[in-house]
Amino acid sequence: MTQHIVKSFQEELDGLSAQIAQMGGLTEAQLQAAIEAVVKRDTQLAERTIREDQRIDTLEAEIENQAIRLIALRQPMAADLREAIAAIKISIDLERIGDLAKNIAKRAMVLQNDFEGANRLIQGISRMGRLAQRQLKQVLDAYSNREAQAAMEVWRDDEEIDAMYNSVFRELLTYMMEDPRTIGVSTHLLFIAKNIERIGDHATNIAETVGYLVTGEWVHDERPKGDTTSTTAVHSGS
Amino acid sequence: MTQHIVKSFQEELDGLSAQIAQMGGLTEAQLQAAIEAVVKRDTQLAERTIREDQRIDTLEAEIENQAIRLIALRQPMAADLREAIAAIKISIDLERIGDLAKNIAKRAMVLQNDFEGANRLIQGISRMGRLAQRQLKQVLDAYSNREAQAAMEVWRDDEEIDAMYNSVFRELLTYMMEDPRTIGVSTHLLFIAKNIERIGDHATNIAETVGYLVTGEWVHDERPKGDTTSTTAVHSGS
Repeated sequence: MTQHIVKSFQEELDGLSAQIAQMGGLTEAQLQAAIEAVVKRDTQLAERTIREDQRIDTLEAEIENQAIRLIALRQPMAADLREAIAAIKISIDLERIGDLAKNIAKRAMVLQNDFEGANRLIQGISRMGRLAQRQLKQVLDAYSNREAQAAMEVWRDDEEIDAMYNSVFRELLTYMMEDPRTIGVSTHLLFIAKNIERIGDHATNIAETVGYLVTGEWVHDERPKGDTTSTTAVHSGS
Repeated sequence: MTQHIVKSFQEELDGLSAQIAQMGGLTEAQLQAAIEAVVKRDTQLAERTIREDQRIDTLEAEIENQAIRLIALRQPMAADLREAIAAIKISIDLERIGDLAKNIAKRAMVLQNDFEGANRLIQGISRMGRLAQRQLKQVLDAYSNREAQAAMEVWRDDEEIDAMYNSVFRELLTYMMEDPRTIGVSTHLLFIAKNIERIGDHATNIAETVGYLVTGEWVHDERPKGDTTSTTAVHSGS
């Protein structure tokens, strides 16, 4: 008898799930840290957040390799194959969320310029951030519990983040127009808000993948698109 | 003898490849149309581009279903499995490029406001667009010919788009600060430029996937990051 223990197929699938959960936890922590770095103008926290993103990238590569190996060697069918495909797709979305959080942290580091109204805007961004964190947490819980219904709630609630983004966007434009000295800071805040809005989109992608994992079907409805800023005709103030 | 012809495994793989090539062609056309709509302020072309995106979304769903079916039923190994995985990954990137092109077209529709300098900026955006189109074409050719080297060239050349984005970004900020009436238009131009920069990133993702498809290995080097605008400290003009 050998001491080596050959992992069962179920153990491998569970291992993949656990890695996704771990990657999800890291991503949640990164998002929270990035928003906190913006709100508190905490440069050290921002630097740390930027550094830590590497761990998420590494995990993505590991999960992908492991899922592909599992498909190749175990040749899973039906629900087991969906587990492996879902792991690949979710890890891609989590990696993107990590990347967006890193970008928010980078912008947090150069937010040294204050202006009247900046605090108000940052409060708005902080609210958006909390909403995105809640969405991310809920969809990761839905994944862990294999709950399609809970995932679909996340999918529907993304509209809320979009609505907040629209209002922050309009407010930012107003400040920029009223006082051109705020443009530099406002542009960073604009991209921070846009990044949070995109994090919401990635959470809805994950929700779709969880739906597929549990039911075997992809949601193909067009989700109501809430970010309308691309069609906002802003007339020159004059 | 029956008239029904059962597709061979190789035929199915070739079919998947052909669908990716078709989706790639559609995406190239959409990107070109979106940039043209911006440059010529062509609202009808923009509307058409927005409508056409649906075809790309449909193809993504089809490719994904077909690749998953193929993995489930044929249980491919090694290079064949990589074909199926690569098809899923590339279709995700192409769908995102299509989405970004649609967003550019939406912004093209509201670019009615002119200002001195807008034409100059739009020329810059047009150059970025051409570069992104070239990158997309090259990486799709690399996929069709299964050429890892050609794919890696695309991966390296992404820096060029990033450098152009940085220069457009700085110019935009300058216009905004000099004349707040340009802020509305400039914000749309800023997002158009950012979308093109992200299209470049998706082309490099596809390049990495082609590398994996051909060699079986993922590139894990950190690509030199060229978009430095997130750390641009813009000092208030005063």
